[in-house]
Amino acid sequence: MLSKAEIQLIRSLDHKKFRIHNRLFAVEGSKIVSEMLVANPACIHTVYASPAWLDSLPAGSTGNFNYKATSPGEMERISFLKSPQEALALVHLVEPEWKVQEIMTGISLVLDRIQDPGNVGTIIRIAHWFGISTVICSMDTADLYNPKTIQATMGSFMHVKVFYRDLPSLLSEFAATEDFVIYGTFLEGESLYSQALGKKGFVVLGNESTGISPELYSFISRRLMIPSFAGASGPDSLNVAMAAAIICSELRR
Amino acid sequence: MLSKAEIQLIRSLDHKKFRIHNRLFAVEGSKIVSEMLVANPACIHTVYASPAWLDSLPAGSTGNFNYKATSPGEMERISFLKSPQEALALVHLVEPEWKVQEIMTGISLVLDRIQDPGNVGTIIRIAHWFGISTVICSMDTADLYNPKTIQATMGSFMHVKVFYRDLPSLLSEFAATEDFVIYGTFLEGESLYSQALGKKGFVVLGNESTGISPELYSFISRRLMIPSFAGASGPDSLNVAMAAAIICSELRR
Repeated sequence: MLSKAEIQLIRSLDHKKFRIHNRLFAVEGSKIVSEMLVANPACIHTVYASPAWLDSLPAGSTGNFNYKATSPGEMERISFLKSPQEALALVHLVEPEWKVQEIMTGISLVLDRIQDPGNVGTIIRIAHWFGISTVICSMDTADLYNPKTIQATMGSFMHVKVFYRDLPSLLSEFAATEDFVIYGTFLEGESLYSQALGKKGFVVLGNESTGISPELYSFISRRLMIPSFAGASGPDSLNVAMAAAIICSELRR
Repeated sequence: MLSKAEIQLIRSLDHKKFRIHNRLFAVEGSKIVSEMLVANPACIHTVYASPAWLDSLPAGSTGNFNYKATSPGEMERISFLKSPQEALALVHLVEPEWKVQEIMTGISLVLDRIQDPGNVGTIIRIAHWFGISTVICSMDTADLYNPKTIQATMGSFMHVKVFYRDLPSLLSEFAATEDFVIYGTFLEGESLYSQALGKKGFVVLGNESTGISPELYSFISRRLMIPSFAGASGPDSLNVAMAAAIICSELRR
């Protein structure tokens, strides 16, 4: 049985302050939790799940982790989802290692004030799909460890390194790197399809309503625009996660 | 002041049965409702909004429509959103005209049992962006007129024709058309990037978990696969709306 303090701790992880204070975040879902038990059991603090779920794990993955038998009623109290899943893991929050050399020699996505955790999570999933190993967020972009963001990554948070940085400092640091291109996505400019895209650089994606911050303009060396084919009655913008998908596809094709 | 019956009528539109019975659906949001008043005022049954909102409309758009002054408390009762918007319109539900010739000579998206209204709405928005004028859904795809679908289209429901059809009959009807290609999106097959894509056809997108129904396989003449660049640790699928965005981009580039 879970103690009141334990339930309170888990519930508190909906707030960034408590995630940082406790160095923990929550991951929900049978598939993702069992994947973590195989891929990186050391990162798991505690798994909350029914004894039946534990029994359903393949032999070998039930080794060395802290497990708490949890009733359906308790799952409902600790879950962040409308329909609680079979398993919830508390996971140690560890920032990945920042490797300048790796970032300088590949493509990273840079998120400027993306507000919606669902968009951030979806973009991390897209990065993963297209083999982009780093996503760098402005300090005020939605938090990776928000349960909604983690959920939207569908497990890709385990495979993509996500950092939070002051973007003007970051971009000014990399702007001088040779052959390194800082792309920005805009609603006007040259069509994405008529440009040769490099293999080293940042792709900056801007806020859902206001786009990229003007203070970043001077660092952007190439403007990318996804043309609309709708004519005069076209929508005035594309969702930022859709734009990310289209640009990543174009970078890798 | 709104009557109890009026509030009940609006709330009932969350259910398909009542939308069909009343031939009405709800559209929320100041921007979309004012766009509709300009683009197609005849489709509007009633607008619910504050007198201040009505005053904010540009002169000329406040002509001939049924308007009900609505208090913030009433807006909260009739809204389908967590944060009610300034305006809600009841709109006449009219199926668009089915024009075989138009469908035969262009690209349409075909949705096979897409369950999530957010995905259906997002796909309609993508179709609009890329100038695809028709989306044809299986009978059990999430309903266009669900408030969540309408919201996710962000107004694009006004610009894209959406139909519900029995897909095996539809595909068998079109399979014999000359130069008409029925593409299907799969997790394996030939890479999307190595194929020349035609200008006439269907692009079939399958259910979020199970993909395209096996009963449709025989109608599909070209399999499209979006390759992952993540290597062995790659995600096992891309969200269907992301896949739609990437494929539409590839069709139009």
